[in-house]
Amino acid sequence: MDDFNRIRASFDRQAIMATFGATLAEVTRGAVTVTAPILPLARQQQGFGHAGLTFSLGDSAAGYAALTLLPEDREVVTSEMKIHLLAPAMGERLVAEGRVIRPGKRLIVVSADVYAVAQDTRTHIALLTGTMIPVAA
Amino acid sequence: MDDFNRIRASFDRQAIMATFGATLAEVTRGAVTVTAPILPLARQQQGFGHAGLTFSLGDSAAGYAALTLLPEDREVVTSEMKIHLLAPAMGERLVAEGRVIRPGKRLIVVSADVYAVAQDTRTHIALLTGTMIPVAA
Amino acid sequence: MDDFNRIRASFDRQAIMATFGATLAEVTRGAVTVTAPILPLARQQQGFGHAGLTFSLGDSAAGYAALTLLPEDREVVTSEMKIHLLAPAMGERLVAEGRVIRPGKRLIVVSADVYAVAQDTRTHIALLTGTMIPVAA
Amino acid sequence: MDDFNRIRASFDRQAIMATFGATLAEVTRGAVTVTAPILPLARQQQGFGHAGLTFSLGDSAAGYAALTLLPEDREVVTSEMKIHLLAPAMGERLVAEGRVIRPGKRLIVVSADVYAVAQDTRTHIALLTGTMIPVAA
Repeated sequence: MDDFNRIRASFDRQAIMATFGATLAEVTRGAVTVTAPILPLARQQQGFGHAGLTFSLGDSAAGYAALTLLPEDREVVTSEMKIHLLAPAMGERLVAEGRVIRPGKRLIVVSADVYAVAQDTRTHIALLTGTMIPVAA
Repeated sequence: MDDFNRIRASFDRQAIMATFGATLAEVTRGAVTVTAPILPLARQQQGFGHAGLTFSLGDSAAGYAALTLLPEDREVVTSEMKIHLLAPAMGERLVAEGRVIRPGKRLIVVSADVYAVAQDTRTHIALLTGTMIPVAA
Repeated sequence: MDDFNRIRASFDRQAIMATFGATLAEVTRGAVTVTAPILPLARQQQGFGHAGLTFSLGDSAAGYAALTLLPEDREVVTSEMKIHLLAPAMGERLVAEGRVIRPGKRLIVVSADVYAVAQDTRTHIALLTGTMIPVAA
Repeated sequence: MDDFNRIRASFDRQAIMATFGATLAEVTRGAVTVTAPILPLARQQQGFGHAGLTFSLGDSAAGYAALTLLPEDREVVTSEMKIHLLAPAMGERLVAEGRVIRPGKRLIVVSADVYAVAQDTRTHIALLTGTMIPVAA
């Protein structure tokens, strides 16, 4: 199974990604992009995307970036993650770009940037850094 | 409008909370509890609640705890939040207890603990600390 | 070697703790207290203790709290740590109380509170949460 | 007073920077580099630079990067900062590169990378992200 199909197989089992309408846009070794519309069901009280939506996409992109570096019999779980919210999640869709900062056997340091895309503009709305742990799949 | 009703009015406008089936369980000055089932739509690839669900509940509980200390014409937005995931989100429901660590005019430091409840057990599954910013409602 | 002596043996090899005049005040299973004066050599531009001093004390207290749970042939290193600075580090001395939030074989989640003590007042000046990793001593 | 002199004037009042032998290496709008040897007085129990040294340099580089964007009558204080330690602080010197991620009136989101330099190698040893608050100088 190539990397893309393997990551997609795991991604497709994450019900929350389907709930948010998220799709896997790009998978390369050490980097994964996830994208999703800002569905009404994922909004906060002012009508923007909820921090939980932005977090979920960034966390998934970062986690799958880590998974591309692991053997096929592994999954990853998030140990800790920090998110800085830089601007409101408004526009047509969010794009989360995850990457590995430092690979390791016991833990993998990752980061992600999330952008809101609206017509011709692309706004940096969040920065995440965190720690992923390999576990048995 | 008393504190509980005011917090609830804002909470009820957060579509993502309805999506997750979350309800406001308790509101006191500086502390708010939010609870939700672990719905199939919010799960990750291993069948546990997704980190994004745990984050969303903890972030909301912490944010509303901050809001209880602000005048009625204010809302809060999350500036940054770190979550430590301590155990899998499994069981019947999650309970997120948010509180204010340090109030302030420009920013409010908050934290939250999230527990998974299953029959007679209550497991500490996440610890969050973060920064909320008051904004015009 | 009992816990206190073992932790002290490691503490005494940390030159930066001697530089800051820090001492190990209390060691129990899963919890360690470190205290230090706010020496002129550790100040920032406004005359308060530098964030780096507060961080160093909190990080050491948290790390040694983790070490109390490990076998004698282990040391810990910090993988990541977040600090919230809640008030200026001013007064006679700082007291950092570290504790274990979740023990584990591969990583240990820890937290610490730092207080500034001046005559009869004790002010909560910092909150830290982080991840320690066991390594060979 | 140009930016470099102004930042240096503040930097020179930070006693802890002198204690660590740190110097201001580069100042541009939104980015500051601080460098320091790994002095024996700043080491941990295994002989590497203590996390508190790495934190102090990264925090200062990030804080001064924020200060370059503010009027002359302002200083900054750290509100919160997370550090990921990626590799041991060993070598001849550390180089901390701070930058502004998102400027703002009430708070400034910053990050820093810290490198250990030994002869011909440069190792990425730490990544920091945090929040700075403008205050009266």
